[in-house]
Amino acid sequence: MTLTDSLVDFFLETRKHTENICAPLEIEDYVVQPIIDVSPPKWHLGHTTWFFEEFILKPHFKGYTIFDEDFSFVFNSYYETVGKRVVRSDRGNLSRPSVESVYAYRTHVTQAVKNLFSSTQSQELNDLLEIGIHHEKQHQELLLTDIKFILGNNPLLPAYSNSFKEHPVQNEAQEWITMDEGIYEIGHNSDAFCYDNELGRHKVYLHSFQISNNLISNQEYITFIEAGGYKKFDLWHAEGWDWINQNKISAPLYWHHIDGTWYNYTLGGLQKITLEAPVTHISYFEAFAFAQWKECRLATEFEWEAAQAFLSWGQRWEWTESAYLPYPNYKKADGALGEYNGKFMVNQKVLRGGSVATPISHTRHTYRNFFQTNLRWQYTGLRLAK
Amino acid sequence: MTLTDSLVDFFLETRKHTENICAPLEIEDYVVQPIIDVSPPKWHLGHTTWFFEEFILKPHFKGYTIFDEDFSFVFNSYYETVGKRVVRSDRGNLSRPSVESVYAYRTHVTQAVKNLFSSTQSQELNDLLEIGIHHEKQHQELLLTDIKFILGNNPLLPAYSNSFKEHPVQNEAQEWITMDEGIYEIGHNSDAFCYDNELGRHKVYLHSFQISNNLISNQEYITFIEAGGYKKFDLWHAEGWDWINQNKISAPLYWHHIDGTWYNYTLGGLQKITLEAPVTHISYFEAFAFAQWKECRLATEFEWEAAQAFLSWGQRWEWTESAYLPYPNYKKADGALGEYNGKFMVNQKVLRGGSVATPISHTRHTYRNFFQTNLRWQYTGLRLAK
Amino acid sequence: MTLTDSLVDFFLETRKHTENICAPLEIEDYVVQPIIDVSPPKWHLGHTTWFFEEFILKPHFKGYTIFDEDFSFVFNSYYETVGKRVVRSDRGNLSRPSVESVYAYRTHVTQAVKNLFSSTQSQELNDLLEIGIHHEKQHQELLLTDIKFILGNNPLLPAYSNSFKEHPVQNEAQEWITMDEGIYEIGHNSDAFCYDNELGRHKVYLHSFQISNNLISNQEYITFIEAGGYKKFDLWHAEGWDWINQNKISAPLYWHHIDGTWYNYTLGGLQKITLEAPVTHISYFEAFAFAQWKECRLATEFEWEAAQAFLSWGQRWEWTESAYLPYPNYKKADGALGEYNGKFMVNQKVLRGGSVATPISHTRHTYRNFFQTNLRWQYTGLRLAK
Amino acid sequence: MTLTDSLVDFFLETRKHTENICAPLEIEDYVVQPIIDVSPPKWHLGHTTWFFEEFILKPHFKGYTIFDEDFSFVFNSYYETVGKRVVRSDRGNLSRPSVESVYAYRTHVTQAVKNLFSSTQSQELNDLLEIGIHHEKQHQELLLTDIKFILGNNPLLPAYSNSFKEHPVQNEAQEWITMDEGIYEIGHNSDAFCYDNELGRHKVYLHSFQISNNLISNQEYITFIEAGGYKKFDLWHAEGWDWINQNKISAPLYWHHIDGTWYNYTLGGLQKITLEAPVTHISYFEAFAFAQWKECRLATEFEWEAAQAFLSWGQRWEWTESAYLPYPNYKKADGALGEYNGKFMVNQKVLRGGSVATPISHTRHTYRNFFQTNLRWQYTGLRLAK
Repeated sequence: MTLTDSLVDFFLETRKHTENICAPLEIEDYVVQPIIDVSPPKWHLGHTTWFFEEFILKPHFKGYTIFDEDFSFVFNSYYETVGKRVVRSDRGNLSRPSVESVYAYRTHVTQAVKNLFSSTQSQELNDLLEIGIHHEKQHQELLLTDIKFILGNNPLLPAYSNSFKEHPVQNEAQEWITMDEGIYEIGHNSDAFCYDNELGRHKVYLHSFQISNNLISNQEYITFIEAGGYKKFDLWHAEGWDWINQNKISAPLYWHHIDGTWYNYTLGGLQKITLEAPVTHISYFEAFAFAQWKECRLATEFEWEAAQAFLSWGQRWEWTESAYLPYPNYKKADGALGEYNGKFMVNQKVLRGGSVATPISHTRHTYRNFFQTNLRWQYTGLRLAK
Repeated sequence: MTLTDSLVDFFLETRKHTENICAPLEIEDYVVQPIIDVSPPKWHLGHTTWFFEEFILKPHFKGYTIFDEDFSFVFNSYYETVGKRVVRSDRGNLSRPSVESVYAYRTHVTQAVKNLFSSTQSQELNDLLEIGIHHEKQHQELLLTDIKFILGNNPLLPAYSNSFKEHPVQNEAQEWITMDEGIYEIGHNSDAFCYDNELGRHKVYLHSFQISNNLISNQEYITFIEAGGYKKFDLWHAEGWDWINQNKISAPLYWHHIDGTWYNYTLGGLQKITLEAPVTHISYFEAFAFAQWKECRLATEFEWEAAQAFLSWGQRWEWTESAYLPYPNYKKADGALGEYNGKFMVNQKVLRGGSVATPISHTRHTYRNFFQTNLRWQYTGLRLAK
Repeated sequence: MTLTDSLVDFFLETRKHTENICAPLEIEDYVVQPIIDVSPPKWHLGHTTWFFEEFILKPHFKGYTIFDEDFSFVFNSYYETVGKRVVRSDRGNLSRPSVESVYAYRTHVTQAVKNLFSSTQSQELNDLLEIGIHHEKQHQELLLTDIKFILGNNPLLPAYSNSFKEHPVQNEAQEWITMDEGIYEIGHNSDAFCYDNELGRHKVYLHSFQISNNLISNQEYITFIEAGGYKKFDLWHAEGWDWINQNKISAPLYWHHIDGTWYNYTLGGLQKITLEAPVTHISYFEAFAFAQWKECRLATEFEWEAAQAFLSWGQRWEWTESAYLPYPNYKKADGALGEYNGKFMVNQKVLRGGSVATPISHTRHTYRNFFQTNLRWQYTGLRLAK
Repeated sequence: MTLTDSLVDFFLETRKHTENICAPLEIEDYVVQPIIDVSPPKWHLGHTTWFFEEFILKPHFKGYTIFDEDFSFVFNSYYETVGKRVVRSDRGNLSRPSVESVYAYRTHVTQAVKNLFSSTQSQELNDLLEIGIHHEKQHQELLLTDIKFILGNNPLLPAYSNSFKEHPVQNEAQEWITMDEGIYEIGHNSDAFCYDNELGRHKVYLHSFQISNNLISNQEYITFIEAGGYKKFDLWHAEGWDWINQNKISAPLYWHHIDGTWYNYTLGGLQKITLEAPVTHISYFEAFAFAQWKECRLATEFEWEAAQAFLSWGQRWEWTESAYLPYPNYKKADGALGEYNGKFMVNQKVLRGGSVATPISHTRHTYRNFFQTNLRWQYTGLRLAK
């Protein structure tokens, strides 16, 4: 089996898995966009397909038949290089193309990619295919969290599936792991795939610090709520305080207080909170305020990467104190793919780890996720440092 | 055949017709809400059904089984009396209830109404059924214009159906009909159904005026555009001038200028403008500016009603100069049905006539339609007076 | 004394009176604009002056020296014909021209007008001067109500003057005046000055109605508040209900509830409410809701004008049920002055009467004032009809 | 002379200097607030005074007579601990207290502080006085840049003073200074005054880098504009690209392109751009895009501090690539003064250096200024690194 063969298998498995995620949906669920940060599942299906058509098939497959000229306009996300596109806030206004034709588009492109790679092999094509696969894996995570948002904000609170485990229980006792002062190396360091924002392996100097082995649990977070954490301005950033007050926020996303008991919407429907599970669906502002209340802080992304071997992680994306910035000597890729990461490196925070929704092959300790400080629809969580 | 029997037949025909309107739709088309004024077709199907359940079945059908307790929350429109409801701007965020379950809801309620009337007959029930039927007929018109908006704002411009004639040609030569000064009687004056806002038959004094036998045609409207009508501030209300500039409006809704030719989106897809057809999809602001440009004016609703017997009308809702206000001695109905009309009697304009989308049995010369001055998604048109 | 002489005297008296209104102000009070509907006093002083310079001196005074070329940009209000202008929302951002230079501008223009009329006399000039005087008188009223808003929304609640009587007590017992059904003549009907919107004397047919001799008092309005009037949605227009809820409105403008007692800010400072005085600073929405609560209604402007001779009026601008629309045969003036009234004839309500802030020579029974339905900073009030 | 004596002298000099900055103003200039980021000069005068009254006189001066109880409400800025306050966006709506009474307030408080320190001396009081002085010096800089904004956005473009040199010419040839890889110490390290955000002296590891001896000049920035820098999306952050397009930004703040020549508003009025002076009034987004265009980058704040001894700085606040974050072991102060810095440590960028508007005694190489990425009204500039 050649490298290309195994890459094509990986490609086919990825394409299939995306569709499996959508299997429990009604057609109606594919269409809506309740907030601007959430895209309709139909759009994810089309956009990940467009990526292969635009960057692989159009430039490299002589004689390729474009599925539909209009889809380029419909399924481009933010690539200014590639031309005009539907504005993001309008994605939920599009009833067409139909779900059926989006699936036909997927089949057409998947088959064409397979055909292309059976006849042509090159490092450049392999690299493009690999980034396309990882791009689709990123969207698999978004697909799941967007579906959760769509169903979890529906007044009927319909379940998605009972087989998805979102709230694993942590059993270990809390401990502080002490890390020594000194120079640490940060960044990607192997031949395996990574994004450009992980490159630029470099040294940082860290002062001695302690980091918790555990994520903060729902039980601990309820204690924070009951202690009035959402009402004490001195725990919050000025911007966070405005945000919770303007949006009347007093608990994590998906939490409901019913007759004195805390419930949360899960992919299996509305359920009592699992007290021993790590808290999730909190913003950076909330993570910071909780840490202030505990007289601790969040780790920086460098501290996290230095300590990660001693931590159990992978259930929650963990907010760090680090702003999303380029590593020293960061270079963005040429052309449209250069728009992938660099242009978002302002006013966002880095998250480290990975979540229950992250495809396993997409998780690694150098991965840098990033979001605005008020976003909560991912499986975000919180680990203390001091 | 009793009165009730024929009313039940009318009811069944109406229920069926609503579903026929939706027959050409894909499931996806039932879900979206591109602007706040447009509701998802699924919502219209559910809301017209809820109306019968809420006002007839719940209070009058002993032993009636409510289809789903949550639907009352989902499908209430603006009846504060009846309880909480999904805010209007969120209607397009609801993927559930599914289209299939909304149709099941329709069948359940239609059957229950039929059963109720086969066992119970009363004037009160007949009156409620009649208002429910007319309510659904109103929504049939909205359903069609909302579908047009949903498809006509999709970048793929999909056709709805080729059998719907939106743009009938006017063949008569333009003439001015002169009406004498004097006292005229205005308002509903028979035993047939009407809404409360048409009641309060009363006298008005009209000065002599002239009104055109014809609606303004697309050809005439193009002349207005080409004469710079959208760029001459003195033709417009201050509020209209701000509106066209802020929204970059320079032609009726659905018009596209492609390579020097005017096209418009129709329910049959994108087509060249039919020059001899009456212009449509214009706001009150545009109707007013056109009339100013012609050194004419719009008729008042009283002038229109006085002259209507001499006019050919029914293709376009015609903007009048009249504000939507109560007639002398107007009384609103008691209870929730009192919310039907009266609470909208401010800052809207009256339209008279009826359009190609209006169910025939829903058209009468005393009917008072009303919209905000900037709305264009109905089949609105324009007739000059002086 | 010629007609022109007496007009010039009237002009000089008017110019002087405007300045007298500002006499109690601090320089700082001339500058601010707390909401878009309120203009800084400095702006009123300059704008009324600009009107004479723009429409009389520039076109008719050969050799006139323009005071400052830039003032045309600063002090134009909405005349599109005349060129660019500071947007309305920016008026309060302008610290310059200074108050001192605005007064110098006034003196320069007042003197030039005086000089012009001492050497040149014509009907056209007289007409322009007369409209300029009435324009300034309109602004005198706005000046006073804008000053009240500026000081009444300052946390220090400073007094303007103790000599201004805003809250005259009504002593007459309430009575219903009955008006007969029939034809009435409406509109201006003499050689005296009026605005174009009062012209087009015409007949209307009125059905029999009753109108109250009295305005609604503060005492009656407090009863409405205490009866939960602001919490009963069925009393309100849908748009009014949204407005009070979004803006958290539960009493007239300037009212403060302190330790169980109602106070209001007056030009003399914060004072206990005078219970026997007519209520003021209410929106149309509030006037309508009060009338609904009393199972009455507001009069139309035609009813008001027909009945006015039997009413004591002039303390409060009285909201009517009539929308602000052109009379039959209304014609707007040519040129920039044609922008005076006509372009505002949409989505506003007519008020009749005149208030404690209206210059006496500016009050007449055919005068049509008009405002949007949510505005409250004028001395608006409420009279019932049925 | 004791330490306290010299501190009191420093205090008196600072108080005087603030008033000197305002000497060229008209009273009207003290009042307005054209954008939310700019405060009225009157407010700065009052707020710096309130700081001494609130944190020194009220708690520490037995028998102190509060000047006016209401001023605490008017002049508090963001200290939630201290109570309610005028919302920031309303500062420009306050005509009262008058400028005269604000000066009386200043005199009252200045004298009271002087009296207190003549009778009572303690380390705690000295520390409070010192932070109050530095707080006022910070506001001196804002006062000047706010005045520039108020006058520079007035359509009359009035001059403030001809004696203020904003645009010093750089004469040195451009050179790259090379800094070695290694460990550097960052943060305040003496007994002199500093803010809490400079503390937590700590080590960082820097890779080798080069930094320019010069700031980017107006000439170089014009070349960027003429090369289409504002039209190339790939130079910009996604958020920056949206910002320039929504706000139609195509040059630094205060720049005017008149008949083919670039002018800028200066405190001396409108003048031709000084080509050899360092560019100023640019946002972080613009600084970043310029650096991208040059295929360079901005320095981090750590690189800047490490290299600063080799740089000539102090004319412009220099945007760095660093987000404003706490140093390791940062601790915020207790009580209200703890609100001084920490709560702003999110979604802002660090600026280093100091500007022509910064009081000299307020400039030091560890000083960390910070602003949102779109702000331009400070004397911000740009230095390249690579």
